Amino acid sequence: MLQVRWSLHPEVRLHRSAAGVLLLFLLQHSRELLFCHLYFQCSLLLTAPTDLAVSFPKSKRAVFPSTSNPQATTLSWRCWMGLTRMGSCAPLARRTVGHPPPIPDNPSAFPFAFQGNDQVRFELTCYALCPSIKVVAPWRLPEFYQRFPGRRELMDYAQKHGIPVPVTPQTPWSMDENLMHISYEAGILENPKNQAPPGLYTKTCDPATSPDTPDVLEIEFEKGVPVKVTNAGDGAVRRSALELFVYLNDIAGKHGVGRIDIVENRFVGMKSRGIYETPAGTILYHAHLDIEAFTMDREVRKIKQGLSLKFSELVYNGFWHSPECEFLRHCIARSQQAVAGTVRLSVFKGHVSVLGRASPRSLYNEELVSMNVQGDYEPADATGFININALRLKEYHRLQSKVTAKQDE
Amino acid sequence: MLQVRWSLHPEVRLHRSAAGVLLLFLLQHSRELLFCHLYFQCSLLLTAPTDLAVSFPKSKRAVFPSTSNPQATTLSWRCWMGLTRMGSCAPLARRTVGHPPPIPDNPSAFPFAFQGNDQVRFELTCYALCPSIKVVAPWRLPEFYQRFPGRRELMDYAQKHGIPVPVTPQTPWSMDENLMHISYEAGILENPKNQAPPGLYTKTCDPATSPDTPDVLEIEFEKGVPVKVTNAGDGAVRRSALELFVYLNDIAGKHGVGRIDIVENRFVGMKSRGIYETPAGTILYHAHLDIEAFTMDREVRKIKQGLSLKFSELVYNGFWHSPECEFLRHCIARSQQAVAGTVRLSVFKGHVSVLGRASPRSLYNEELVSMNVQGDYEPADATGFININALRLKEYHRLQSKVTAKQDE
Amino acid sequence: MLQVRWSLHPEVRLHRSAAGVLLLFLLQHSRELLFCHLYFQCSLLLTAPTDLAVSFPKSKRAVFPSTSNPQATTLSWRCWMGLTRMGSCAPLARRTVGHPPPIPDNPSAFPFAFQGNDQVRFELTCYALCPSIKVVAPWRLPEFYQRFPGRRELMDYAQKHGIPVPVTPQTPWSMDENLMHISYEAGILENPKNQAPPGLYTKTCDPATSPDTPDVLEIEFEKGVPVKVTNAGDGAVRRSALELFVYLNDIAGKHGVGRIDIVENRFVGMKSRGIYETPAGTILYHAHLDIEAFTMDREVRKIKQGLSLKFSELVYNGFWHSPECEFLRHCIARSQQAVAGTVRLSVFKGHVSVLGRASPRSLYNEELVSMNVQGDYEPADATGFININALRLKEYHRLQSKVTAKQDE
Amino acid sequence: MLQVRWSLHPEVRLHRSAAGVLLLFLLQHSRELLFCHLYFQCSLLLTAPTDLAVSFPKSKRAVFPSTSNPQATTLSWRCWMGLTRMGSCAPLARRTVGHPPPIPDNPSAFPFAFQGNDQVRFELTCYALCPSIKVVAPWRLPEFYQRFPGRRELMDYAQKHGIPVPVTPQTPWSMDENLMHISYEAGILENPKNQAPPGLYTKTCDPATSPDTPDVLEIEFEKGVPVKVTNAGDGAVRRSALELFVYLNDIAGKHGVGRIDIVENRFVGMKSRGIYETPAGTILYHAHLDIEAFTMDREVRKIKQGLSLKFSELVYNGFWHSPECEFLRHCIARSQQAVAGTVRLSVFKGHVSVLGRASPRSLYNEELVSMNVQGDYEPADATGFININALRLKEYHRLQSKVTAKQDE
Repeated sequence: MLQVRWSLHPEVRLHRSAAGVLLLFLLQHSRELLFCHLYFQCSLLLTAPTDLAVSFPKSKRAVFPSTSNPQATTLSWRCWMGLTRMGSCAPLARRTVGHPPPIPDNPSAFPFAFQGNDQVRFELTCYALCPSIKVVAPWRLPEFYQRFPGRRELMDYAQKHGIPVPVTPQTPWSMDENLMHISYEAGILENPKNQAPPGLYTKTCDPATSPDTPDVLEIEFEKGVPVKVTNAGDGAVRRSALELFVYLNDIAGKHGVGRIDIVENRFVGMKSRGIYETPAGTILYHAHLDIEAFTMDREVRKIKQGLSLKFSELVYNGFWHSPECEFLRHCIARSQQAVAGTVRLSVFKGHVSVLGRASPRSLYNEELVSMNVQGDYEPADATGFININALRLKEYHRLQSKVTAKQDE
Repeated sequence: MLQVRWSLHPEVRLHRSAAGVLLLFLLQHSRELLFCHLYFQCSLLLTAPTDLAVSFPKSKRAVFPSTSNPQATTLSWRCWMGLTRMGSCAPLARRTVGHPPPIPDNPSAFPFAFQGNDQVRFELTCYALCPSIKVVAPWRLPEFYQRFPGRRELMDYAQKHGIPVPVTPQTPWSMDENLMHISYEAGILENPKNQAPPGLYTKTCDPATSPDTPDVLEIEFEKGVPVKVTNAGDGAVRRSALELFVYLNDIAGKHGVGRIDIVENRFVGMKSRGIYETPAGTILYHAHLDIEAFTMDREVRKIKQGLSLKFSELVYNGFWHSPECEFLRHCIARSQQAVAGTVRLSVFKGHVSVLGRASPRSLYNEELVSMNVQGDYEPADATGFININALRLKEYHRLQSKVTAKQDE
Repeated sequence: MLQVRWSLHPEVRLHRSAAGVLLLFLLQHSRELLFCHLYFQCSLLLTAPTDLAVSFPKSKRAVFPSTSNPQATTLSWRCWMGLTRMGSCAPLARRTVGHPPPIPDNPSAFPFAFQGNDQVRFELTCYALCPSIKVVAPWRLPEFYQRFPGRRELMDYAQKHGIPVPVTPQTPWSMDENLMHISYEAGILENPKNQAPPGLYTKTCDPATSPDTPDVLEIEFEKGVPVKVTNAGDGAVRRSALELFVYLNDIAGKHGVGRIDIVENRFVGMKSRGIYETPAGTILYHAHLDIEAFTMDREVRKIKQGLSLKFSELVYNGFWHSPECEFLRHCIARSQQAVAGTVRLSVFKGHVSVLGRASPRSLYNEELVSMNVQGDYEPADATGFININALRLKEYHRLQSKVTAKQDE
Repeated sequence: MLQVRWSLHPEVRLHRSAAGVLLLFLLQHSRELLFCHLYFQCSLLLTAPTDLAVSFPKSKRAVFPSTSNPQATTLSWRCWMGLTRMGSCAPLARRTVGHPPPIPDNPSAFPFAFQGNDQVRFELTCYALCPSIKVVAPWRLPEFYQRFPGRRELMDYAQKHGIPVPVTPQTPWSMDENLMHISYEAGILENPKNQAPPGLYTKTCDPATSPDTPDVLEIEFEKGVPVKVTNAGDGAVRRSALELFVYLNDIAGKHGVGRIDIVENRFVGMKSRGIYETPAGTILYHAHLDIEAFTMDREVRKIKQGLSLKFSELVYNGFWHSPECEFLRHCIARSQQAVAGTVRLSVFKGHVSVLGRASPRSLYNEELVSMNVQGDYEPADATGFININALRLKEYHRLQSKVTAKQDE
């Protein structure tokens, strides 16, 4: 079936016959909606979550390559978007290089652009995994973009060659969707002052009309990875990575949780404005942040925060399969060893509120912190602690005074 | 000798009259409600915002020592709490060392504890500003805490000496309040699993019962500092630092914005659980984050993010008046030079949503980012950019393959 | 068409006559392609230090754009090389864009290569200062490098057009020289195992044959910048930036100080091996490091160390004129406010040894540190300091034991 | 034999009988030379390297707890000192808590001081490994230091109780010695301007009189750890951790390598001046730095450099046995996986010079870097790389110009 479709396109055949393969060709031009029946390679990214459920690998790593990790912790919620996006791009590209997945019946368009981040992400991943690969990106080839300068020329070409083209009227913005999020960019959104129209959102309800009763959830973590979600209301339980993620997408969507409007900094050097919805991701972000703070040592966490800033930069820029990102993933995984326990939270009117948490691995010591119990803590020690910490400050003051006095003379 | 003075109770007078003297004495024991009539020094922290309005300095720096700065940007919202707290502690302590403010009529209790952060914050500040000061912290002196092991002994002492003690029944937790936030700790909250009781909150409404219509605000920034708030609904305008802050406290409080339940890491080494309300601070946090991302260069922002992690650590730990914090404030202020413009946002049901932004100083270039306009951007350049970035990854792969191949032999 | 223009410009011929051929010619003139007679701009880089003396700007900033700064402090000595190199490239390129300096009589060749860092450094600088500039780099243009694939073709072309080409036998490596350093790369040095031949070095003596008596110098700093050098032996004094730098080059060269053999990481993604001589720079590096440690607060220095790692990366990669590098320079300059004083050191047999230092701004307090004087320091305070610091460690141990015990059950 | 000596001292008996033991007692007071026969616990640190050879554990970890790690790489050579010192303190303290080692015949004095770092290092280590331990540090106990305010009182006490006290005239500075280094502090060295007297050094020759012929060594590394040293001159080979370290101490000492004079920042808040000799450590520092740069990916190395700054701070401050240091050691060990190969270097007249290196794991690609071979590298790619990198700089310039223009109006 694959071949049949391919045979329609001389160019494609050409590329396939070339040693070294190529797929970015497919990813790149996909923007045009022209060869959309070809770019099966990235179709997984584009179909609905429920469809994804079928083809998505079962292993945790595939769904939470990054959930268990830094962005879920240190990074502000904003970074979560780019991460989840790359989080799914990278494993996908990895798989793509291996064996082409089946073609979905209803692929949507994938708006790769020549100024975009995704071209970089996909290509770096391909090169890192298969250095001998030859990527052909028509939209960056003068011979292509000079021949097809605009949509009209593409349409003409499609018609002439009998290529079916979807004619549904486009929204005045572009969308990218995957299991974790959807982004809206370009078109009327390019003016950063313009508010996103209410009708834009597709994965979350408007908080104004969302239910008046919260859902209260308990999310259990092991080694930083969510392994179980329980709805305290109806007792619903989800355990597998995919199931619980899809479930959280539903709950968050129902309560309008996960919308964000940001200006981000693309790797290729420009600022761009995007609206995102990340329903399940937003809940998991808050839950993981809480359980991590509860179980991780203060100083380990500070170090990990620094690593996370770097990690998110790498992932956003497409360096998932790089020595440094491998290194960071290893370090971060280590930091998550004891991140285990259960977070109780409420999802309501666009907001996630943590209500409490418990863990067998917490460094929290209720006795130690109690104002009523003195315990191991010797009050007088604080005096020495403060005095020694003040020593340096006093010396600095002494010197400053001397210098100032001298200047005043 | 200490006792003698105490029994006079006039010690207070004594202490005040003494040059240089004490104060922490006053701050520390204040916990007991016993000498509450003495600790005027910290009373500013404890009175209601509206009262504060009178005595609070007019300058921006006093209200936004940190608003304009990193935590408002990089740090997750969680850090905001500790910062605002210290943000007001430090200037206060600074002033205290200088000239004692007038005693308020209705000071509340200030629950300094010997395991707490605040003792460190206040004392480090005092030492940094006035190294010759002698801090007396009764609660860390064996002769004091052995004489007054508990509340009962204090009450007895107060009665015997005719010291008026508030008898209002205490909540089963402790509270600290200032212009920017209120914290709830200890008591039943010490079990991190316990949900905060609904009646606990004092500065924000329950989002479940908050208005069904959002307030839409426009907040204007100059050099990272909010200088004007306009309510798009009723046209209300607030300009001065204090006025706009008090106004935002009202708006946020009305919509249930600013609640958080976290486990934090005290400087003295233990984890503790706190519930916070930071109404205005939460709105400003989101607004500043947005305008900063819009106007600040990508790479400057990355560096500043690292500085911010350090800055918040310093402030939380009480090192506001330290050479390193001075240095960081200088650096961060520099980073805010071009952070100017207006953010439009909605406050609704516990959540702040950014709707759009505009700035005369933005690095955002609508033309450059447009998918429809090619502009300055040469598509072919991305090819070289990607290839050069991939070079290192390919080399790494090459080496890994060689090593793996060797191992397989 | 390119050729046509070339023939128009006698200067070009002049410059081309230099051994090693072309390059900046290409980059610089490239601006216009036309004004190749302007590219003497980079000739300053290539002439000997003594010649430089004439044309080099008098201001400190020009000679020590970075001396006063991080690399002189935090970075290992290794980074010094790339920095000094860029340190001079950037101001130069800056000037180039502005007003062309006079043409020196004897420009040497500048071996830019298409895999090199310098092309990036120069071009980024040009673009940053003059975005509308059009850089033409023949060595990256297929039409050029296909026509002149190797040295032979270039020679033929030169002969055919009557362009005089030096026929002195080339060393089997390439060299780049400026006031601060000289680098040796390529050729037989490309094998990282090959020891640099003794005859390679041109700026420093072999320590084996250098004088048997050290030179002892006193170097005075103000705000991190060296302002005076005194030779304790003969009383020689040098004050101006250039004079003292040239003098230190002499002294260091005489004693074989400043040689290094390293493998570095180019911005374009490959590792390369280089031999460097940095005579004056090496002395200043050690002197500045010492005076900084003596005068700068411990915590400020830690922060600055992190900034320095970033700063050196930026400078090495050619981002001197970038918002982030401007920001860092500002921050680092601030950190140098109190870096003042005099360092005494010995230069001998390839090594620089610090002998002592003095400063009016030091945070060093001899009384405080003395083991014989108790001074302000209360011994008992250390107990509390240690205990509070141990609190977290004990909690961690407690938890680990619990977890281990459970696993053992 | 241990008991016999103990019985002489009532205090000692007291402490031993107390539940919870104690050892710091022994370490702390050791300064006094009074109870020197008791402080066997730290004697290992104080005897000569050759004696150490007998009792030192054979495992690599003991000798190179940190050699294989960051300080050997990123940190400037200065940090090496503190690290090696702590590197040996921590394992020692660890062992001490377990079983007391045999008493050496000739223990030297161990100058713990109440302002020092070592008290913190030892005690934190003890607390981290055995939280229930009770440390008694006489020199910080008023009842002790008021009874023995000075040396005279101690001498009197010793005489009265028949405690043998060494009467060798002390040098006018204090010394701490272990396998890795020796430090000289206090006394006449407290004035940071005073040059160390030539007779001070005990482990290295004066470079002025050291041999006129270098030793050329080849040092082989596996996973960042030195595993073999070969002397290219006489073919001598050393393999085991201890043997090669002792051998390098000899070679470096013979050539005057490893001396340094620095001002450092103690954890307890003061600056102090120290002279150090670190013979073998200095050679290994340079060798490891070189092989790491040769084999480690550029971006991994940048991250590791940041971690190293933190690691050295932790080790210097005594947090070897802390969750964060465990975490960092794990991360750094991971970074060393491929750090393997051989470095050739020369040791001569106080200086170590790297001559070349080879590795089966290097990312260095001679073909790629060659100026003569084009290889995989497409020159035209650099154009795109530079252009994309310049995009952000141009935007920044555009904005700056706009702002400046506006200000000029």
